[in-house]
Amino acid sequence: MDSPARPAPAPAALLYYVAFSQLLGLAVVATTGTWLGVYRGGIAWESALQFNVHPLCMIIGLVFLQGDALLVYRVFRNEAKRTTKVLHGLLHVFAFVIALVGLVAVFDYHRKKGYADLYSLHSWCGILVFVLFFVQWLMGFSFFLFPGASFSLRSRYRPQHVFLGGAIFLLSVGTALLGLKEALLFELGTKYSKFEPEGVLANVLGLLLAAFGAVVLYILSRADWKRPLQAEEQALSMDFKTLTEGDSPSSQ
Amino acid sequence: MDSPARPAPAPAALLYYVAFSQLLGLAVVATTGTWLGVYRGGIAWESALQFNVHPLCMIIGLVFLQGDALLVYRVFRNEAKRTTKVLHGLLHVFAFVIALVGLVAVFDYHRKKGYADLYSLHSWCGILVFVLFFVQWLMGFSFFLFPGASFSLRSRYRPQHVFLGGAIFLLSVGTALLGLKEALLFELGTKYSKFEPEGVLANVLGLLLAAFGAVVLYILSRADWKRPLQAEEQALSMDFKTLTEGDSPSSQ
Repeated sequence: MDSPARPAPAPAALLYYVAFSQLLGLAVVATTGTWLGVYRGGIAWESALQFNVHPLCMIIGLVFLQGDALLVYRVFRNEAKRTTKVLHGLLHVFAFVIALVGLVAVFDYHRKKGYADLYSLHSWCGILVFVLFFVQWLMGFSFFLFPGASFSLRSRYRPQHVFLGGAIFLLSVGTALLGLKEALLFELGTKYSKFEPEGVLANVLGLLLAAFGAVVLYILSRADWKRPLQAEEQALSMDFKTLTEGDSPSSQ
Repeated sequence: MDSPARPAPAPAALLYYVAFSQLLGLAVVATTGTWLGVYRGGIAWESALQFNVHPLCMIIGLVFLQGDALLVYRVFRNEAKRTTKVLHGLLHVFAFVIALVGLVAVFDYHRKKGYADLYSLHSWCGILVFVLFFVQWLMGFSFFLFPGASFSLRSRYRPQHVFLGGAIFLLSVGTALLGLKEALLFELGTKYSKFEPEGVLANVLGLLLAAFGAVVLYILSRADWKRPLQAEEQALSMDFKTLTEGDSPSSQ
């Protein structure tokens, strides 16, 4: 038996943009690794190199994985909605766990060195990102994955969830840029103005970060690239319009 | 004679958000002025205070005025489209001229002090903002104000213009954050970690900047807050759908 509706192919331009975003994201991770490996002595937990765990984890978790978690609805267009939702939620869990390792690394490093915590704009923005990320995840789980929320509640909350998700991602990119700048100025000081190779590499990393943020935002902003409703979702949503609002899809 | 259609009132929530954005924008400008006045000795062109012209002009031009220029289509909903367009273009001209003064101030200050130019991530992002802003303005003028472009060309270019405008605004906010961080670390150095009043004030300024960017972005992202087509524009666009694409509204 044939399936009732052939899945619609993804727009070609979307595929190119997604591929470009992945190239940029991998370039960001690779450049961060190069910077830490070549100029900062690499990575270790039990030494002064513990600090370097922080930028690497944050770039992988809160920039690359978080960015990709936002793109799953554009990439997985013909899979069941629930599968895509679970993937979206799981990628955020991975991102959060990796970022948490990065957070512990920097606090532990500060404690061992006797440095003050949470005095800089980078740290204030970083804590804000963590709180917003966590609240957003809990709200997203309660509304969209936990079976209690009604369709009408979900559709009222969805635009807020989408906007806040994009804003938290952009704030993460901005916070990474602030941290990069901080790490450069602490270490290079006035040598930064001599076009030291480390400074130039870090500037390139900064531009790559901004470009990754911009391309992800562009993909999300294209209304015509949104995931189309699947046949069964369409039927459900049509049915639902005729029902009283406020019923839960899973009640009874 | 009554006008054929009563202008639709703006959504109440939009007005509150616009008011909030203006409060935040003014708070950003006032906090920048306070920072420069209280901790950096104020502003002058012919002295070491010339540097301070740079952050003030950039905040007024590329953050506050640019943000407001993006909001004019949401605020002036019932004025003629052309009037709103001219206001949008003019606010960008004001923003650009003020930012140019800020740009000259910092290059002139560097020259007098013998400092290097364009080595930092902040300066690279800043030059990128200037180039993108200028190209975007020229393209916007050529497509939307200069009478040569056809309707079909305009409607194909519009989404790109809207996205790039938002992206340039966000990059401006990010660049301001990087510059603020640079100014703090150069001046305060390790005192920054002692929760010096200047550091705390500058951190608050950074959060206000991020909040202004987020609220402007939120207003722009709400599809239901977009400027409604006026009666005569609606008629024109309906007419136009029946014509061959590619004709210019002003040809002949």
